[in-house]
Amino acid sequence: VKTIQEPDWENVTIPRGLQELSPWAARLCLAVERFTREILPDAPQKAPLLIALSGGPDSTALALLMRLLAERLGFTLAAAHLDHGLRPESIEDARFCEDLCRCLAIPFHSAAVDVEALAREANTGIEDAGRRARYAWFAQVSEEIGAYAVATGHQLDDLAADQLMRLARGGGWPALGGMPAWDPGRRLLRPLLLTPKAELIRFLQELGIPWREDASNAQKHFTRNRVRLDILPLFLRENPGYLETCARLWRQAAMDREHWDERAVEAETAGSTPGFLPDTVLCAASAALRLRLYKRAVEALGPGQPLSGTLRRLDQAWEARAVGKRLQFPGGKTAEVRPDGIRFHGVDTQEG
Amino acid sequence: VKTIQEPDWENVTIPRGLQELSPWAARLCLAVERFTREILPDAPQKAPLLIALSGGPDSTALALLMRLLAERLGFTLAAAHLDHGLRPESIEDARFCEDLCRCLAIPFHSAAVDVEALAREANTGIEDAGRRARYAWFAQVSEEIGAYAVATGHQLDDLAADQLMRLARGGGWPALGGMPAWDPGRRLLRPLLLTPKAELIRFLQELGIPWREDASNAQKHFTRNRVRLDILPLFLRENPGYLETCARLWRQAAMDREHWDERAVEAETAGSTPGFLPDTVLCAASAALRLRLYKRAVEALGPGQPLSGTLRRLDQAWEARAVGKRLQFPGGKTAEVRPDGIRFHGVDTQEG
Repeated sequence: VKTIQEPDWENVTIPRGLQELSPWAARLCLAVERFTREILPDAPQKAPLLIALSGGPDSTALALLMRLLAERLGFTLAAAHLDHGLRPESIEDARFCEDLCRCLAIPFHSAAVDVEALAREANTGIEDAGRRARYAWFAQVSEEIGAYAVATGHQLDDLAADQLMRLARGGGWPALGGMPAWDPGRRLLRPLLLTPKAELIRFLQELGIPWREDASNAQKHFTRNRVRLDILPLFLRENPGYLETCARLWRQAAMDREHWDERAVEAETAGSTPGFLPDTVLCAASAALRLRLYKRAVEALGPGQPLSGTLRRLDQAWEARAVGKRLQFPGGKTAEVRPDGIRFHGVDTQEG
Repeated sequence: VKTIQEPDWENVTIPRGLQELSPWAARLCLAVERFTREILPDAPQKAPLLIALSGGPDSTALALLMRLLAERLGFTLAAAHLDHGLRPESIEDARFCEDLCRCLAIPFHSAAVDVEALAREANTGIEDAGRRARYAWFAQVSEEIGAYAVATGHQLDDLAADQLMRLARGGGWPALGGMPAWDPGRRLLRPLLLTPKAELIRFLQELGIPWREDASNAQKHFTRNRVRLDILPLFLRENPGYLETCARLWRQAAMDREHWDERAVEAETAGSTPGFLPDTVLCAASAALRLRLYKRAVEALGPGQPLSGTLRRLDQAWEARAVGKRLQFPGGKTAEVRPDGIRFHGVDTQEG
């Protein structure tokens, strides 16, 4: 366990603006500012932004960067920390976050839970229970302060690991591109998603800002840590510029997602509904588009991810004009080839 | 170095048809037959197929499978082997291939080269020189016998490694999906591309057919071997069904490639030419399509792969209506924003 000496907050000076930074650090700030504007172009002035703060290097750098950019970006800041109670030093982590926020003049919200007990109760893994408890706490604080978004410290190394995990688990395109930088449903914002972790560390070091290390990041019983510690270094060995290629892949996936979303909207204009895809729409579509329309139609009916093999068999049945053919999807959902198109049923619409 | 005992060809019996196989082996044959028809639907009857034979398990299984399926698929078979002269046992490999082809009643063509000398002369790597020499030999035999296609033994484990290598090197989508099963330009056919290597081995074992091991496959100074030996096992550890997900990803990439190809043909109908993309076409296109049209336009002008970052900057210049803005691509190619679209120049058309 690597611990950090008691930070000497008396001697930490927070720069008041970008002009007080080195050219390198100022460029980093400007890149984060540009990316944040790009992914969140319509944020209102003085939008309250809640920073999800663990005290690790990523979220510490996030807090510092947002402090430096808040005025330029028009954010009002707050921070929230959840003590998971999993490690003896977690109380010190909480105190570190509080001290950091005092130093940065950011209102600080904290709570403590017993994640081990929560995992036992919910009969789930520690990592999963921790994530749920954390995001529930962020949502609670968000509501209290009327936050516009919750900003997390996910950075480019996290994105690279996320892409590899999605690949390992059998994700398709564009999902393979990795987590979004802005998730409007959960109001999650990831301003550092295209910034390498090494740059965040260098930034903190240059400014003399301390951070906390989480020893559980080295534990290999979490898939994410195995991917981060075992697989990602092998890709970096093959290609030292691998992180940049991850950022490019992410951008391409975002563009393709937009392309497919636009085509789906066109299909809706042309008469498709969540429960029905008419032949008029399907006949005009490429196979690539048809499969994505099926996927959307199944997903719109409720939880349960359709398997790509089943979607393919559905398309083969449709191409063969196998009227009456029915395919089953997880979550009790079905699709049926009809004389005029494909009808999708959820559990509740089985007789529809 | 793992060597194999002298094969006892006298006691090897080649089944005369699928009915002599176990149900499992017959199903494997039928799956390979279905896939070959799918990827090569328009092969003429009695098309001469040249099998690229190394004597390793993959190409040995390929020769056997093609022997069993030749009549059903309408192929006339021949095989070619190139002795690379890199390993002391390579003469035995050549003799093994000859014996195998005699046993399978497949006409056999062989030659020997000194790949080490070729690599020195061309100032290139051993692996690269070997590949060039091999494919040159296959092309030569193809021409002599009027082959319709050259079939190689690439299987699903090779495809999985190819996808990981493309990812590591920064390939985009759909290139990330991996090598094609049918390359009409090079007339390369890969009938085993979605068959796991383990199934090919089991097939050979069931039928009592020997094969040769290539010790150089264990050498980690080749990127491909490092990916195959170090990275792929980690993905299989995370997901034991990983090879099937690779096959699904490959299918999705093939579909998406078709989608983008169709859109590019539409763009050509609407007035785009290899050297010019008019605003009428670009304004109707999504960003995802525009980037792919730029890529095609640059590639059509000759060798040199455009970087995706440059393509993105070109699109930003076009969106900003930055008339006169010029971007450079590898191979001396350029693109220029004009008042009515984007003009692409090769080295020879610089003044065009």
